[in-house]
Amino acid sequence: MNPSPLPGWKDKILFTPGPLTTSRTVKQAMLRDLGSRDYEFIELVRDIRRRLLALAQVMPETHTAILMQGSGTFGLEAVVSSTIPPEGKLLVVINGAYGRRIAQMARILGIPTATLDYPEDRKPDPQEVAHALEQDPTISHVAVVHCETTTGIVNPVEALGQVVQERGRLYFVDAMSSFGGIPLDMAQAGIDYLVTSANKCIEGVPGFSVVLARLEPLLRTQGYARSLSLDLLAQHQGLEANGQFRFTPPTHALLAFHQALLELEMEGGVAGRAARYQANYEALLAGMRALGFQEYLRPEDQGPIITSFRYPEHPNFRFETFYRALNEKGYTIYPGKVSHADCFRIGHIGRIFPADVGDLLRAIQETLQEMGVQLEGR
Amino acid sequence: MNPSPLPGWKDKILFTPGPLTTSRTVKQAMLRDLGSRDYEFIELVRDIRRRLLALAQVMPETHTAILMQGSGTFGLEAVVSSTIPPEGKLLVVINGAYGRRIAQMARILGIPTATLDYPEDRKPDPQEVAHALEQDPTISHVAVVHCETTTGIVNPVEALGQVVQERGRLYFVDAMSSFGGIPLDMAQAGIDYLVTSANKCIEGVPGFSVVLARLEPLLRTQGYARSLSLDLLAQHQGLEANGQFRFTPPTHALLAFHQALLELEMEGGVAGRAARYQANYEALLAGMRALGFQEYLRPEDQGPIITSFRYPEHPNFRFETFYRALNEKGYTIYPGKVSHADCFRIGHIGRIFPADVGDLLRAIQETLQEMGVQLEGR
Repeated sequence: MNPSPLPGWKDKILFTPGPLTTSRTVKQAMLRDLGSRDYEFIELVRDIRRRLLALAQVMPETHTAILMQGSGTFGLEAVVSSTIPPEGKLLVVINGAYGRRIAQMARILGIPTATLDYPEDRKPDPQEVAHALEQDPTISHVAVVHCETTTGIVNPVEALGQVVQERGRLYFVDAMSSFGGIPLDMAQAGIDYLVTSANKCIEGVPGFSVVLARLEPLLRTQGYARSLSLDLLAQHQGLEANGQFRFTPPTHALLAFHQALLELEMEGGVAGRAARYQANYEALLAGMRALGFQEYLRPEDQGPIITSFRYPEHPNFRFETFYRALNEKGYTIYPGKVSHADCFRIGHIGRIFPADVGDLLRAIQETLQEMGVQLEGR
Repeated sequence: MNPSPLPGWKDKILFTPGPLTTSRTVKQAMLRDLGSRDYEFIELVRDIRRRLLALAQVMPETHTAILMQGSGTFGLEAVVSSTIPPEGKLLVVINGAYGRRIAQMARILGIPTATLDYPEDRKPDPQEVAHALEQDPTISHVAVVHCETTTGIVNPVEALGQVVQERGRLYFVDAMSSFGGIPLDMAQAGIDYLVTSANKCIEGVPGFSVVLARLEPLLRTQGYARSLSLDLLAQHQGLEANGQFRFTPPTHALLAFHQALLELEMEGGVAGRAARYQANYEALLAGMRALGFQEYLRPEDQGPIITSFRYPEHPNFRFETFYRALNEKGYTIYPGKVSHADCFRIGHIGRIFPADVGDLLRAIQETLQEMGVQLEGR
């Protein structure tokens, strides 16, 4: 096989939760080799960190942007493994696979962990979190996912943060798939640690994650790290001391990310991008309903990142066939992850526009005809 | 700042231990967005893993190639944290900063760790390792670095492996900067786990590491992992089960790596590449001696990856000035890392050729003149 682009060859459009379709200019920024200890690279990293703080509406005097090699999960594990003291206890508020992953991670690390579990189609209730914190004074940290891409639900991180902050606990938010695409004031929401990834709403390529941390609790975590590679405080200190990563950074992914940040600003920042994602979502929902598909979540719980649709109740529908046929037409959708319902997912983030959603909808209609699946549209 | 390439703009040539100068075609392979669960990407990963085993001269029946997100250090930590049982003990054979890093990592992980320490300009003695293993029967695993880029020394991993294997212990080799550039028969050397990185002698871009593992010991490590992200066995099982990574892979870095593997084969495999690196090294050494520089290691200990040179004894020599002047001329060299001598380093790996070394030598000569540093050449 030779995966190199050929003349006339076209990439599939990715309707997934990431890696996403990115702009040509973001990818072209990678056509360079920069030394990881070179002045130009150090300046690039400094500028990325500064722009990330601005996106979160926080200041360098109170917050830091820490870049961590690896996927988003590595960034989450850096927070969980580096910021909870030996005598600490983590409460994870769960309504999907990504919340469950945080609890699993903490347990592997030997951290005492409690969970508050909700069905995947329901948002967590801040009053129940308040109750859990009052019942168990040993809980020191609370973690929740902002947009659970298991379903696409957007959790009330601001209301949860108020409850956590009022009770004097520290607060992690996994904003992997939402940061940059859903407006969020980190300080106002009482978030101490926020994790996102290069290849979600900022529309970079995968290779590292981003941890936005409040300095005051971070600087008290000396000696807590349970790993060398994922030591969050040491990574912060390294970046602050000389602008360098402790270990080889993904220089090309960082070049792409810097370009992606510039393009995010050109689009009008988070508000501009959120508006495009919302338009993508609305075009998709209307079109899918018209084709006879039913969304999994209630519209009031659904966010603009990714939508889960139930398998249609038709004897000819096979997801594998449907997926492959769309793939051959140039559109990549995503399998489902909901535990108790057969669903598939369509993402609406990345360098895609309502016109691309329209193309996907036409391909879906064609595929249903080919499969002999007649549905009744709304 | 805008780090995007401008018309007429030329990248610096990197004489470093990585990230390296890569070929234009390797970088161009990244001008695509592939879905991480898509058939085409799964086939790409399968082909990469197959080619890596062939490079190590091992078979898929006995060995596996595991790709791990993050820098090379993340791959090392995956091995150290996932393959040593709770009752195990690690002996690290050290003659440089990278050996010390493995011991530091193991200690942070709470793994009982012994070290056998050598001066940075001396190779470890297999008989002393044998003695250490005989003295301490609780040592279950032995780790050593193949090419210590602290100095550029190449350690006798085959002779050490024989001693370790004969005494029934498991053997890790950190071949980060050597794999693909120095011929090595993994099975013959008795290596159970070998770690390398995408952006060294295979000449890909940074973003992941590679762990080559013997299946027989690996499959007995269930339950040993001390991390979710860095769980080596789970990563292997995920790749085997459906060809997918457990967590988002650096898709673009993998596209580049596949192209880099094809180009390594076109160059005549490891033998062809080793010959070019040797030619780079010889051109550099002859030229630097002629300019009056002295290398740190004895020639018989020096490998073809990177060379440490002592600061010249001249009152006008300042490394910072020297480094910046070369940088402005388009050549990036590397600071020293030797503990007890003032050195700088020049790497000779990556997409560079003896002609590039010649250009660097002319720039060094010019810079010495500008600095008013007159040396006596040999």
